[in-house]
Amino acid sequence: MTTPPLAQIRTAVRTALDEDLALGDVTTAALFPDPIPARGTILTHDRIVVAGMAAARRVFAEVDDALRVLAVLEDGHWAEEGNTLLTIEGDARSMLKGERVALNFLQHLSGIATMTAGFCEALRGYGTKVLDTRKTLPGLRALEKWAVRLGGGQNHRHSLGDGLLIKDNHLALLRPQEIGPADACRRARERGPHGLRVIVEAHSLEDVRGALEGEADVILLDNMTPETVRTAVDLIKGRAVVEVSGGLTLENAAQMAAAGAHALSIGALTHSAPAANLSMDMVPVHQ
Amino acid sequence: MTTPPLAQIRTAVRTALDEDLALGDVTTAALFPDPIPARGTILTHDRIVVAGMAAARRVFAEVDDALRVLAVLEDGHWAEEGNTLLTIEGDARSMLKGERVALNFLQHLSGIATMTAGFCEALRGYGTKVLDTRKTLPGLRALEKWAVRLGGGQNHRHSLGDGLLIKDNHLALLRPQEIGPADACRRARERGPHGLRVIVEAHSLEDVRGALEGEADVILLDNMTPETVRTAVDLIKGRAVVEVSGGLTLENAAQMAAAGAHALSIGALTHSAPAANLSMDMVPVHQ
Amino acid sequence: MTTPPLAQIRTAVRTALDEDLALGDVTTAALFPDPIPARGTILTHDRIVVAGMAAARRVFAEVDDALRVLAVLEDGHWAEEGNTLLTIEGDARSMLKGERVALNFLQHLSGIATMTAGFCEALRGYGTKVLDTRKTLPGLRALEKWAVRLGGGQNHRHSLGDGLLIKDNHLALLRPQEIGPADACRRARERGPHGLRVIVEAHSLEDVRGALEGEADVILLDNMTPETVRTAVDLIKGRAVVEVSGGLTLENAAQMAAAGAHALSIGALTHSAPAANLSMDMVPVHQ
Amino acid sequence: MTTPPLAQIRTAVRTALDEDLALGDVTTAALFPDPIPARGTILTHDRIVVAGMAAARRVFAEVDDALRVLAVLEDGHWAEEGNTLLTIEGDARSMLKGERVALNFLQHLSGIATMTAGFCEALRGYGTKVLDTRKTLPGLRALEKWAVRLGGGQNHRHSLGDGLLIKDNHLALLRPQEIGPADACRRARERGPHGLRVIVEAHSLEDVRGALEGEADVILLDNMTPETVRTAVDLIKGRAVVEVSGGLTLENAAQMAAAGAHALSIGALTHSAPAANLSMDMVPVHQ
Amino acid sequence: MTTPPLAQIRTAVRTALDEDLALGDVTTAALFPDPIPARGTILTHDRIVVAGMAAARRVFAEVDDALRVLAVLEDGHWAEEGNTLLTIEGDARSMLKGERVALNFLQHLSGIATMTAGFCEALRGYGTKVLDTRKTLPGLRALEKWAVRLGGGQNHRHSLGDGLLIKDNHLALLRPQEIGPADACRRARERGPHGLRVIVEAHSLEDVRGALEGEADVILLDNMTPETVRTAVDLIKGRAVVEVSGGLTLENAAQMAAAGAHALSIGALTHSAPAANLSMDMVPVHQ
Amino acid sequence: MTTPPLAQIRTAVRTALDEDLALGDVTTAALFPDPIPARGTILTHDRIVVAGMAAARRVFAEVDDALRVLAVLEDGHWAEEGNTLLTIEGDARSMLKGERVALNFLQHLSGIATMTAGFCEALRGYGTKVLDTRKTLPGLRALEKWAVRLGGGQNHRHSLGDGLLIKDNHLALLRPQEIGPADACRRARERGPHGLRVIVEAHSLEDVRGALEGEADVILLDNMTPETVRTAVDLIKGRAVVEVSGGLTLENAAQMAAAGAHALSIGALTHSAPAANLSMDMVPVHQ
Repeated sequence: MTTPPLAQIRTAVRTALDEDLALGDVTTAALFPDPIPARGTILTHDRIVVAGMAAARRVFAEVDDALRVLAVLEDGHWAEEGNTLLTIEGDARSMLKGERVALNFLQHLSGIATMTAGFCEALRGYGTKVLDTRKTLPGLRALEKWAVRLGGGQNHRHSLGDGLLIKDNHLALLRPQEIGPADACRRARERGPHGLRVIVEAHSLEDVRGALEGEADVILLDNMTPETVRTAVDLIKGRAVVEVSGGLTLENAAQMAAAGAHALSIGALTHSAPAANLSMDMVPVHQ
Repeated sequence: MTTPPLAQIRTAVRTALDEDLALGDVTTAALFPDPIPARGTILTHDRIVVAGMAAARRVFAEVDDALRVLAVLEDGHWAEEGNTLLTIEGDARSMLKGERVALNFLQHLSGIATMTAGFCEALRGYGTKVLDTRKTLPGLRALEKWAVRLGGGQNHRHSLGDGLLIKDNHLALLRPQEIGPADACRRARERGPHGLRVIVEAHSLEDVRGALEGEADVILLDNMTPETVRTAVDLIKGRAVVEVSGGLTLENAAQMAAAGAHALSIGALTHSAPAANLSMDMVPVHQ
Repeated sequence: MTTPPLAQIRTAVRTALDEDLALGDVTTAALFPDPIPARGTILTHDRIVVAGMAAARRVFAEVDDALRVLAVLEDGHWAEEGNTLLTIEGDARSMLKGERVALNFLQHLSGIATMTAGFCEALRGYGTKVLDTRKTLPGLRALEKWAVRLGGGQNHRHSLGDGLLIKDNHLALLRPQEIGPADACRRARERGPHGLRVIVEAHSLEDVRGALEGEADVILLDNMTPETVRTAVDLIKGRAVVEVSGGLTLENAAQMAAAGAHALSIGALTHSAPAANLSMDMVPVHQ
Repeated sequence: MTTPPLAQIRTAVRTALDEDLALGDVTTAALFPDPIPARGTILTHDRIVVAGMAAARRVFAEVDDALRVLAVLEDGHWAEEGNTLLTIEGDARSMLKGERVALNFLQHLSGIATMTAGFCEALRGYGTKVLDTRKTLPGLRALEKWAVRLGGGQNHRHSLGDGLLIKDNHLALLRPQEIGPADACRRARERGPHGLRVIVEAHSLEDVRGALEGEADVILLDNMTPETVRTAVDLIKGRAVVEVSGGLTLENAAQMAAAGAHALSIGALTHSAPAANLSMDMVPVHQ
Repeated sequence: MTTPPLAQIRTAVRTALDEDLALGDVTTAALFPDPIPARGTILTHDRIVVAGMAAARRVFAEVDDALRVLAVLEDGHWAEEGNTLLTIEGDARSMLKGERVALNFLQHLSGIATMTAGFCEALRGYGTKVLDTRKTLPGLRALEKWAVRLGGGQNHRHSLGDGLLIKDNHLALLRPQEIGPADACRRARERGPHGLRVIVEAHSLEDVRGALEGEADVILLDNMTPETVRTAVDLIKGRAVVEVSGGLTLENAAQMAAAGAHALSIGALTHSAPAANLSMDMVPVHQ
Repeated sequence: MTTPPLAQIRTAVRTALDEDLALGDVTTAALFPDPIPARGTILTHDRIVVAGMAAARRVFAEVDDALRVLAVLEDGHWAEEGNTLLTIEGDARSMLKGERVALNFLQHLSGIATMTAGFCEALRGYGTKVLDTRKTLPGLRALEKWAVRLGGGQNHRHSLGDGLLIKDNHLALLRPQEIGPADACRRARERGPHGLRVIVEAHSLEDVRGALEGEADVILLDNMTPETVRTAVDLIKGRAVVEVSGGLTLENAAQMAAAGAHALSIGALTHSAPAANLSMDMVPVHQ
């Protein structure tokens, strides 16, 4: 459905395995001098949108490419409490090396996808998009944004280089030069990269008027009530895309959509989604 | 107080800046052809234990070593709602490059330290330690374990190489060879690295007896009620350290301590602590 | 004027020095057991727009941070034949280590900036922008795009991730599904990242009509004559930005501008600009 | 025929793909949710010596190892205008990810090989070798020197560590110590690595005499006319190899050979060869 | 038998091949334009414990994965003078690229394993363990500690992070604060990681008493005579593990064991074991 | 005197510190919450040629750039038993982090320099050079070759790319094509890099004759007695440099020199030199 960020998965998996295996797995090495044919199963103890299977598979492949993943619930699908996500066969010693790292990826990313899906459900029928932000954990941005897509969201800019987003701090710094939102939009268009839309953050209807004058492509209404959003939407009259952010919850999201927002950008998706509750069991098998 | 993991901070900061600045900051470049002398302030909107200042300082130093950090609330201290963590002076264009990355570190790590401190408070008077686990986010283990120390916790093993921890999956895999907890402990002592304690996970009093017979240094009681913990403690009679894990909350932590646990290991500290709510404001200054 | 890509300069400089110095500078080591105080001068033998000084300075700083750069013609300025770009003092042994690498950066980047400036001059008075492409040398993209900016050009997308550019191969692959330019534009808007403009390549007036129907932000007219460009511009009537590419030369560029092109994208800027002709002289000095 | 520098190709390919795909291919991802079986063809629009096929193949293998390269014109062979270099089958989405990067390698390296071959043709019958220099693009030296070999040239030193080459700046720095070319050669032989020839640059017949006295293995005549080269050759009388550099063109190369030069070293091969004109077409196929 | 440190082997092999092949194998390239089918044989000229086969195989696989290793004496086994360790078939040009690097690994690691096995033989019957130290060569620690295990030894701590070892310098630095060995042990237990034993170095019986009072897990008797070791063992009475270090030789090792040492830690195993004497022969084969 | 390989030292120091400090220094962290002003001293317990000071200084600078190195015995000088190499002041916690790594570099490199100096002394009066080989430890080649220079030796080729050395295996592989040493030398000259001498290994006087016929620059007499060396020297009559290798000891080295060898290449210098015996003491100081 959505393309996994393979290069970043590879890097993150290696980093995580380096953290965990820099000195080897001394317990397993001490207990098992010989291979232990086994079957492992990863289960969920919550209802979740599965995210991170491509990372988990990569973990086991990196640890030991002789491990065989036998059955898999794919990324982007719902799993019910008690469902199996992944079954694996091979030498248990290798599974033990990858277990924790694979679970850490799955728990974090499924947590994000599940929270995103919750917002998408809350907005059903409005056509309003759920967007992420740059409030991501260091080193995990591409993976977290992938989880957002798996949960049904759409990505906002990935970095400071692939979006022209004029924020409140930019405007505050331009004020003494008597440059307002309209001129800021024109500067961004004149000097910024050719392929980017101009987005401007507005904290008041005054700001909205400036943005319209500057022919912004997108106006981001920050920390406004649903009522103010509605007024701004009326003012904008389809001349720009309307994005809303700040203090969004499952409760007020639909109100923002009803007020005319085309998209909601939500930091909590990536910085505060609790981990999904997963575990891995292993049993020895006869060969 | 506690040593920050400088090498890992350096790596994580570079990784995070690479994510955000690989294509430059195109908005700032388009808006500000010249330096903008400014002052920035990072504030908290929650009551938190501050964690990550060493990372935030590193972010700004890496972006532009001419930025001057003027005042600082140190890692490991409590900040009240509205307190300033950090004031910074210099070219606003550099601050804008580091702002989001610095906040991402501070929000995540302060979230962890604050949750850890909550558990430490709940255990006050018992002498029971709060321990972390390996349920950390990929690439951030050393930083998250540092945040746990800043919150008053103690670190469990960092990786599969610096702890001999015999878990349920190990025991399940040894069972067909008729090797129980006692023999597993002996093997670990015989073949494992010289400098490590032998820790064994117990799911029943039977397991506890095996662990004692094998002269385990630490017995980890997993997913037991406070009552069973108390019975196990009576059985152990000081012959091993008692660690408890599984389903721990601020509510039941004190009960476990009262039952005789020497240490509680808690996955949620690192995998599910919500981000602290921080922001950064900038104002231009006259030079 | 334009921000140098410091991180990429640092990486490229290290790579280049590694290539040249992996086994040391054996000639210099054999000839000079002791430091040789000297002055070095980098001159141009052509009229050029200087580009790469930030890289050259980095080269010498990386080789020996005791070298003192005494005078400098800044990036983005014109230098006449025989002008001095840079004067340097310190141990000649260090200069000899950095000489070739510094010149290699300056010659390549100044060549690009000079060719870009030539196109900008040819377009003077039209307000038409000079854009680069992704036809860059492997590993040098950020530096080459910086040289284009120094020569007066503007950057097109940096990578496949910061531009929604629907090209002829995309359209050829969509044809069997009976998806034309209009639908392709709609798909890109619906699923692509929130911050990007939709650009579509047109090879015929038919394509132009499709692009207009799909509300493309930019229409890229590829390999058309000035006459066809003029017809297309009339058809577009200001509803999209007009970009032109293919077979552009200093001769036909002004014709395209006169025909109404807002921007010209030119591959040769980065793949075929000849090196500027520079050299470095050294003389010993009394201390 | 000539061994490709596999390790450096691998590194350069990864670097180039990182540049282009750090944020994914957002256009292709938006347009094609499912695989598109297709055939791609890379063609030349010029007469060229093909160079870089090993790099192009590596690009596609790195992007998607399920892509099948079906037919190939090998490195080092001539291709006529309109010839196919490479045919490829598989998922078009993967081809689109590798297209530009593969072309960038092929265009640059074939440009170098073709210019080298031009010089070799000009020297036919003289036995005079065509040599490259260290005037290469940062990070691409091994690949560019490979292209020179593919075009029929021979490599000069790769770095400052695998050649003892006493240049004009070395001699200028030694002069105040009253050390001339003869003593410089002796020092290089005495202290330099055991496996290297001693080469000395000569700008006058006086320098040539010094080099002969110092028993240089090779004398590099820099910026001399064919007449002076002939005089120098007469003076050298076979006691050293004669290398010529400076201002060499297809026009004067044969004159230098006729004057007795054993080898010509030419910077333009690597710093100023224009890119070969190649393109890639894709068509969907029925499976 | 003992798990090879695969990640570190991979890194070390790449580093070593980079050192040797950064500029290619110019002799082989000049002599052999075409593949040369051949058989290679690695022999030992000494009686050794084989160590490093996993590294040697990795070398040849990294150089050319079409090389076939046909017969192999496994790591950890004795080889007599003249025995073949490894036979290999394929293109001789690839073998020549890997030959020296493979031999360098085998010679160094077999030297360590053989010296370790010598100490193990000297201690036969005592149950005393042979331990390594952190006196390893930079970058080769994991490989050298693997060689120690292959020779029959057990590993001491791998780094400063996986052992709580209070040494003489620590105690000297604590003295002015009037903190002796007993308090130092308590601090280490209180604040150090949960999974580690407390080990303390003792230089006198006084130190031993302090260590016992502090309930150290292991007491390391440094630079003591066998007689003093015996006295210390009597004092310790089984309350701590007894480790001995300093000036250990094949001659005095058994005396230390007889005096009651449970383990001997020996720096020379890794810093001064002479290389095993191996060589590789190649012969062309008919295909 | 001889230039240290700074880039490789930097890399090796980081690698070594990563090995030792990946998980921090847990003992020091547990024992010393606050800085401990101290003085440290590195002493030798043997008579040695000091080598590695530049690496040791780099270790301490990398760990903590506030450490002050107060007095230093420079690389390349003799130190007598009991001499101080280095005194250092600052926070003892930082010294403890760098101690072992710094000693590991110094002990290994001083061991090599001291063995090299022993051979140089044995050859005094003959003008015969001491050369190293490629029998170095993986990852440490540049440092070990630097130690050889510090001990008075000269470097042989650094890698397979900076020397044309035709060895016995090359000749064995060429034999079926009826290519002998003379033709092999011609091929190497014709196709090898321009800047390298042609060296050929000879195992018989027959080989020597071939080498002379092929105009080899250097003839390497391998595993010959002093008598055969003398015969070969007579045959060569100054037409090539004479290098000797195989089974060289302090005892037979002078005989080889007396027989006319210009250079001896000795593997044991880098693969079997025992570590120098050094240690570091620390004492707290009053501030």
